[in-house]
Amino acid sequence: MLPNYALTAIGNAIVDILAPTTPEFISSQAKNGMKPNTMNLISAERAGEIYKLIGPATEASGGSAGNTMACFASFGGKGAYIGKVADDQFGKIFAHDTRAIGVHFESKPLIGGKPTAQSIILVTPDAHRTMNTYLGACTQLTEDDVDESIIANSAITYLEGYLFDEPKAKAAFFKAAELVKKHSRKLSLTLSDPFCVVRYRDEFMALVENHVDILFTNEEELKELTQKSDIEQAIKAIQGKCEIIAVTLGDKGSAIVTNKEIIRIAPIMPSQLVDTTGAGDAYAAGFLFGLTEGKPHPECGRLGSLAASEVISHMGPRPLTPLKNLI
Amino acid sequence: MLPNYALTAIGNAIVDILAPTTPEFISSQAKNGMKPNTMNLISAERAGEIYKLIGPATEASGGSAGNTMACFASFGGKGAYIGKVADDQFGKIFAHDTRAIGVHFESKPLIGGKPTAQSIILVTPDAHRTMNTYLGACTQLTEDDVDESIIANSAITYLEGYLFDEPKAKAAFFKAAELVKKHSRKLSLTLSDPFCVVRYRDEFMALVENHVDILFTNEEELKELTQKSDIEQAIKAIQGKCEIIAVTLGDKGSAIVTNKEIIRIAPIMPSQLVDTTGAGDAYAAGFLFGLTEGKPHPECGRLGSLAASEVISHMGPRPLTPLKNLI
Repeated sequence: MLPNYALTAIGNAIVDILAPTTPEFISSQAKNGMKPNTMNLISAERAGEIYKLIGPATEASGGSAGNTMACFASFGGKGAYIGKVADDQFGKIFAHDTRAIGVHFESKPLIGGKPTAQSIILVTPDAHRTMNTYLGACTQLTEDDVDESIIANSAITYLEGYLFDEPKAKAAFFKAAELVKKHSRKLSLTLSDPFCVVRYRDEFMALVENHVDILFTNEEELKELTQKSDIEQAIKAIQGKCEIIAVTLGDKGSAIVTNKEIIRIAPIMPSQLVDTTGAGDAYAAGFLFGLTEGKPHPECGRLGSLAASEVISHMGPRPLTPLKNLI
Repeated sequence: MLPNYALTAIGNAIVDILAPTTPEFISSQAKNGMKPNTMNLISAERAGEIYKLIGPATEASGGSAGNTMACFASFGGKGAYIGKVADDQFGKIFAHDTRAIGVHFESKPLIGGKPTAQSIILVTPDAHRTMNTYLGACTQLTEDDVDESIIANSAITYLEGYLFDEPKAKAAFFKAAELVKKHSRKLSLTLSDPFCVVRYRDEFMALVENHVDILFTNEEELKELTQKSDIEQAIKAIQGKCEIIAVTLGDKGSAIVTNKEIIRIAPIMPSQLVDTTGAGDAYAAGFLFGLTEGKPHPECGRLGSLAASEVISHMGPRPLTPLKNLI
């Protein structure tokens, strides 16, 4: 039987609070543990502190895998999303924005517990983003949320490395991986963040070797995973560990690594570079959309670049122009 | 004693839910009472219905007088805001965005009642906006929220016509007007919306003649107020009813009407026209900033045009570039 969904993504369901900032502000927060250009996990109290210090913001649905599904649907792909929001205003925003693009999203919201996750995303004039994430309700994503009928009905299931940051969500992650194997579907993983790789390097490598079919990683994450300081050596070290490894290389484009070859994909420059939030998420969406449509790898890579190019041309991690109109 | 605040604004404290739409969608909702290019008051249920029908959105603090204060502060002006939010996530967003720009905002949030007001703002490709506002907590703004010490300490107090839509808020409006008179300060009013003028025409005219010093109105609102179908006749009919009348005329600029003269102000064209939400609010901010800085009327009008030009060049009603940098 053909699967109902081309792609199902499981991730931390987050509403972004996006604000422009200065490099000086980011530096001033180093003493409180804020690492520039990465995802920093923070407490509710620390989120309150940071929020008080920043200027006016705008809010938009985010979350790495959520952004990927938004881009995938924007290309015209059919998909589903699994993630935990709370029964609050941010949760309603996330659910609306997910369903409004045609993505199946029926994960039960958390009632009476922690609020919907939020990420305070600080964007510097060079378009780099520093994320400060309070996971809230995401910590209550459990194995029960991983609906077997959805995974069985999805050609590809896509998982965020970020899920490893919470024990219950990690268990949900492994349940999904087992179900993918049981139903002979494909498993895709994104490494999410270099510090996420530092936290779970060995587990990620075992996953890639034993479960993952399609891996997404950027340059920093891959260097961490392979423990190579040179990107070309890192690419050689990962080659063959799974079927396809797509390595995003910022303004140098990307590389698609299979057992047989390494294909170099040119970047697509945006009309203006405003905010790199969601660039990797968008690339994964374009690549996977191409793959589920049966396109050759170079075309998959081009679609990835195209989606990333749209998303970094404005504030916010999700496309403002339907990506299917850009193909 | 010199006042502490150059400007205090009182208005409906609203979080905007902004989404692009098509003219066809707006037309399809005519049967449900949606009037294009105006502010439609809706129930919580109707807000839920509209939200289900629209695509992905972004959220940002709004509200007419709130937007005016954001622009006024962005010029470098010192001010305060009075408005009612709830103790919920949208209320925290509104309070943060107001305080983060340096505006004094200490109105007590509503606890355990209706949620913070929201306006679903639908923007068509011609950059026009149709607002669908559920007032929620704003209906509980009362006279008690109008702090005499703030009004006494403000050179100008600025009121939204929209406040007339709720009896308690209307009473708060009149209390503010009385306090302005008691402390010999200046009162400014914006007519807010043509249908708002239809609802309260006689009361607005009596207010203008007896209490208002500086009136803001657009072409449609002024025609409704004066019952003249020709804008030049409408301008003649309003001349002399209060000290200053600033009439915004869309892409034809604006007119400043005093007892002595009618000054024509050229529009400032934006780099791109994206979303006219907040254009009038921004104009009022620029004009009032000029006035409180002692600038001549033509310069006040130019600052109004400048602020409007920035705000309509992007989605959302508040400036993304500090307006003081544009002077």
